[in-house]
Amino acid sequence: MKLASLNHGRDGQLIVVSRDLKMAVHAHDIAPTLQFALDNWHEVEADLQHLYRNLNDGIAQHTFPFNLALCSSPLPRAYQWADGSAYVNHVELVRKARGADMPESFWTDPLMYQGMSDGFLAPTEDIKVADEQWGIDFEGEIAIVTDDIAMGTRTEEVHGHIKLLMLVNDVSLRNLIPAELAKGFGFFQSKPSSAFSPVAVTPDELGNSWHDYKLHHRLTVHLNGELFGQPHAGTDMTFNFAELIQHVAKSRAICAGSIIGSGTVSNKDRSSGSCCLAERRMLEILEYGHAETPFMKFGDTVKIEMFDDSGHSIFGAIEQTVVRYKHHYHDEDLNHHNPHHQQ
Amino acid sequence: MKLASLNHGRDGQLIVVSRDLKMAVHAHDIAPTLQFALDNWHEVEADLQHLYRNLNDGIAQHTFPFNLALCSSPLPRAYQWADGSAYVNHVELVRKARGADMPESFWTDPLMYQGMSDGFLAPTEDIKVADEQWGIDFEGEIAIVTDDIAMGTRTEEVHGHIKLLMLVNDVSLRNLIPAELAKGFGFFQSKPSSAFSPVAVTPDELGNSWHDYKLHHRLTVHLNGELFGQPHAGTDMTFNFAELIQHVAKSRAICAGSIIGSGTVSNKDRSSGSCCLAERRMLEILEYGHAETPFMKFGDTVKIEMFDDSGHSIFGAIEQTVVRYKHHYHDEDLNHHNPHHQQ
Repeated sequence: MKLASLNHGRDGQLIVVSRDLKMAVHAHDIAPTLQFALDNWHEVEADLQHLYRNLNDGIAQHTFPFNLALCSSPLPRAYQWADGSAYVNHVELVRKARGADMPESFWTDPLMYQGMSDGFLAPTEDIKVADEQWGIDFEGEIAIVTDDIAMGTRTEEVHGHIKLLMLVNDVSLRNLIPAELAKGFGFFQSKPSSAFSPVAVTPDELGNSWHDYKLHHRLTVHLNGELFGQPHAGTDMTFNFAELIQHVAKSRAICAGSIIGSGTVSNKDRSSGSCCLAERRMLEILEYGHAETPFMKFGDTVKIEMFDDSGHSIFGAIEQTVVRYKHHYHDEDLNHHNPHHQQ
Repeated sequence: MKLASLNHGRDGQLIVVSRDLKMAVHAHDIAPTLQFALDNWHEVEADLQHLYRNLNDGIAQHTFPFNLALCSSPLPRAYQWADGSAYVNHVELVRKARGADMPESFWTDPLMYQGMSDGFLAPTEDIKVADEQWGIDFEGEIAIVTDDIAMGTRTEEVHGHIKLLMLVNDVSLRNLIPAELAKGFGFFQSKPSSAFSPVAVTPDELGNSWHDYKLHHRLTVHLNGELFGQPHAGTDMTFNFAELIQHVAKSRAICAGSIIGSGTVSNKDRSSGSCCLAERRMLEILEYGHAETPFMKFGDTVKIEMFDDSGHSIFGAIEQTVVRYKHHYHDEDLNHHNPHHQQ
């Protein structure tokens, strides 16, 4: 089935969306929010699936046209966003461009960072950045959403724990990364809020394109209306989602509603293009000695989507514009301010 | 006021606790959970404060003895756990012990990592670790809980945004850290679930001991019943909580209920001891050329608390035992498992 959240309150309002993304219906009688549904999946799944069937069959009541511009992220905020870097070929390329070898262990031990999850951008929300010089980039990825998973769970036990899949735009501030990683504690300011596809889908919805814990479709990225890349997400994925879950669960349990990302989708076949500017710039550095493609400027747009074999959008599109963020300083906030004694 | 959560459901059940930590009263008519209270602070604060006054005055109804063994973490799960390393003296020491200089910028640019927040240990819950060889350590810290904070907020605008303070045991798996940090993406498996003090307190509760956005009391740590350290949390804190908030907010907004940690409390005055085993081991390496104090073993206990000037516990104690974790493989999970096609 396909689920989405209308932009309402802090956690959205759960709706069920038809397979063709044309119609929707409120699910509040079953679960008010997607996080509630994930927290109580065993109790709500059958009712949600029933509603989804009725919606597709045209017999659900109180339906309305699906408008993805009214959606928040399926999970507007989440308890976990753990992002892997499963397309190791991409990592190797980044290293090669700066003249560094990649350790052999990167082919067997997944790279992963803990991302911020306290607020995600809506799929059509502007990407607000204070400074264009921070090196604004998109990253097209696949993500899964899990239920509760015990500490120590291994790949062979992962079956059934992947409840939903989504697309991601993992916004990155490339020029903040080198100094931040040099400090040794990983990404922080260089990874602001990510955006997810309007619709999250259950694995059964994907049919034969979901196997080996990989999603076997191309991920299509447009920059300012022009095709930028469409690498195949099922190709060159060194670590599948079962292996990424095992990595997360090594020393801790995983809470329902946790989101785990694949990292930038990337193929060794260069003709399929890239899912982020950084990769294209690396290829230019290797070819010409310098990068030619600039990072995103204010006004630039990125569109990330995935089509099934019949050319229909599966998740709806992430479509975002980069805009300048201006922080407004509120003097009234300071009326009672004494910097040496906060009450 | 003082707030806690009874262990109930995924998000606990909010209670108000008396100043002396002896009595409590349910707050469910005002806010079912602490996250709900933080999401709606302006609407609920006055009612919670009123209930707190009545509880302390002995005129609240339906009160019951406060039992911290029945508490979950004040926030059993949270949307953000961002942990700084504000006692830079500690960072310098760690570096010195391995013969590395610390960059000068560490004195002006805070170190911070994104921690996992999808599940925290209760204050008296066992620390379950699969392998003693992972180098099990505690870290005594102070943490704040914020309301919503706009992107770009600066130190001079932070006033009023710190809603609660807590103590933390930031459990660390020291022997997993070097390999993990060498990969460049920061901590992940080496930072399992943290534990927080049973009680979270509002800044007004701390009187003159809360100023300059620092908490001016000693943090007391006992290991296996013996005093291990009691450094002063207001001394040698290079970055105060206003500066840590500014660091988090540089490229993103902060959601209500976000937890920001100070990092291990540490004083230059060595006679006050340490708040983690790693620091004592570093001091031993510098003095004797090798570490003498082992990491925690199964059965070891750690107790972290803070007393006011009259010797009363402010937050209640974190008191935890390290135990061996055994993952049970459930064959029934695999009944329908086909590794090459997950439905």
